Amino acid sequence: MTETVLSSPTRTVVIGYEKPFCVIGERINPTGRKLLAAEMALGDYSRVEADALTQVQAGAHMLDVNAGIPLADEPKILAEVVQLVQSLTDVPLVLDSSIVAALDSALAVYKGRPLVNSVTGEEDRLETVLPLVKKYDAAVVAISNDETGISEDPDVRYAVAKKIVERAEDYGIARCDVVVDPLVMPIGAIGLAGRQVFSIVHRLRTELKVNTTCGASNISFGLPNRQGLNAAFLTMAIGAGMTSAITSPLHPEIMTAIMAANVMMGTDRECRTWISKFREPVSDVERGERAGRRNRVRRRRVAL
Amino acid sequence: MTETVLSSPTRTVVIGYEKPFCVIGERINPTGRKLLAAEMALGDYSRVEADALTQVQAGAHMLDVNAGIPLADEPKILAEVVQLVQSLTDVPLVLDSSIVAALDSALAVYKGRPLVNSVTGEEDRLETVLPLVKKYDAAVVAISNDETGISEDPDVRYAVAKKIVERAEDYGIARCDVVVDPLVMPIGAIGLAGRQVFSIVHRLRTELKVNTTCGASNISFGLPNRQGLNAAFLTMAIGAGMTSAITSPLHPEIMTAIMAANVMMGTDRECRTWISKFREPVSDVERGERAGRRNRVRRRRVAL
Repeated sequence: MTETVLSSPTRTVVIGYEKPFCVIGERINPTGRKLLAAEMALGDYSRVEADALTQVQAGAHMLDVNAGIPLADEPKILAEVVQLVQSLTDVPLVLDSSIVAALDSALAVYKGRPLVNSVTGEEDRLETVLPLVKKYDAAVVAISNDETGISEDPDVRYAVAKKIVERAEDYGIARCDVVVDPLVMPIGAIGLAGRQVFSIVHRLRTELKVNTTCGASNISFGLPNRQGLNAAFLTMAIGAGMTSAITSPLHPEIMTAIMAANVMMGTDRECRTWISKFREPVSDVERGERAGRRNRVRRRRVAL
Repeated sequence: MTETVLSSPTRTVVIGYEKPFCVIGERINPTGRKLLAAEMALGDYSRVEADALTQVQAGAHMLDVNAGIPLADEPKILAEVVQLVQSLTDVPLVLDSSIVAALDSALAVYKGRPLVNSVTGEEDRLETVLPLVKKYDAAVVAISNDETGISEDPDVRYAVAKKIVERAEDYGIARCDVVVDPLVMPIGAIGLAGRQVFSIVHRLRTELKVNTTCGASNISFGLPNRQGLNAAFLTMAIGAGMTSAITSPLHPEIMTAIMAANVMMGTDRECRTWISKFREPVSDVERGERAGRRNRVRRRRVAL
């Protein structure tokens, strides 16, 4: 039973096979969002605040925080944004940067146990990121590519993931604290992108016994009705054994698909979350009748 | 490569691993539809006509036809309905009855190669249905229960399916003409109902190498937002290897989920069906601009 435990000062989230799928909000990321990037570079985090609150309200269990803005002081901005978001919400965070100094500064200010995003199978990444993860007792996302790039062969991507997990163990990082991202490619360009991921995820779960995550939206890049494809991809990935994803919780069809997948996997015990979300609202008339019945029963009991 | 070939006089449908998922319309079935049952018993098939046409229009590849009305002359009604539906649409049919005489009369009038629904692992069913299937060179749905009922143990249900497939071979019915229904139980009552089916389907595909089908709507019995659950169930079942289902094509969320699952499985080549369904409609202004560009290009060519 593999469980990755993440926390903020007041909340713990567990990613695991017997847990509901973990939704990591993707929105706090300036990549491809020019306005957000410009504001963040100037120290204006109002949009970050709104993104944090709306994603948590929409059901995100964790939030990814990325401050990758060209020419900006990423270590400073990432640390500031992490502190800001931790002051606004209590969900654990994913500290997301390709710059080791930014990960370091974010880890230094983070309160609780975060997920570091990410390390790859490249030697220089392994040797710089893993010691940091160990130093701060964090968990880490392992992306299954290396110096040779991203292989289209699922066996190669599995092998890279295995290498990272073993190297992490050398650094004293437990296997349950490595969450593997098998890398999701656009299915419009690579027709087997879906089956590749499902196959790798199945092996990661049954053979390597690690938790998994991914940037789910990549799958639908360039295609129409992206949310319809993202929903099906996530549903099938959960069926194959995936335990978390970085995605947008703001699309109701995505969240409904994930909730339904939790029912199918048996992680929504007795369908309680599903039922409480979707049961028919009781009308005022019915409510009145029920109250009437209860009162009659009470009166009868009193009379006995 | 297992392919089940079904046909009407003018159309062939192939159920198979490399084919888009086969949607079998469930609506022509008086079970639980009192009005339809009463009308059909009196020989009024107007609602059957409407159900046939709307389901095909909504994208059904085949139609299930059932005439199970208590105390009615089911062999006569089923044969009449089969002839009627075949006069209205050209999709192949699933002849659905628990009464062998009704299957016989429907097979006698059916034009093409139908799917017989169903045989179970019970001895008397095997000995009466399989000879009929062979006589008419049809394909058959094999339901994985027997005299002992429906087991909750996926291994037992797999074993029953294997027994039926082997018995069919004894009767000269090829393995590719047996489509196994692993039996879908309500997940509100049996929390493992989803995982059981996915596990059996995976074995049926990889070990027994047969096509599969199911009555998909059972999964959500008694729960709210049934279509949300049915969509997730079908998506995950397709991911596990299921190749057809008896379901309602009239719910857009079900059809969208199945189309997206086809993209994920690589059976919607180059995403053509998805793109043609969901691409943004071109506005009149754009259309005019494009026509303008084309005309300018034409004029230039003429001028050269």
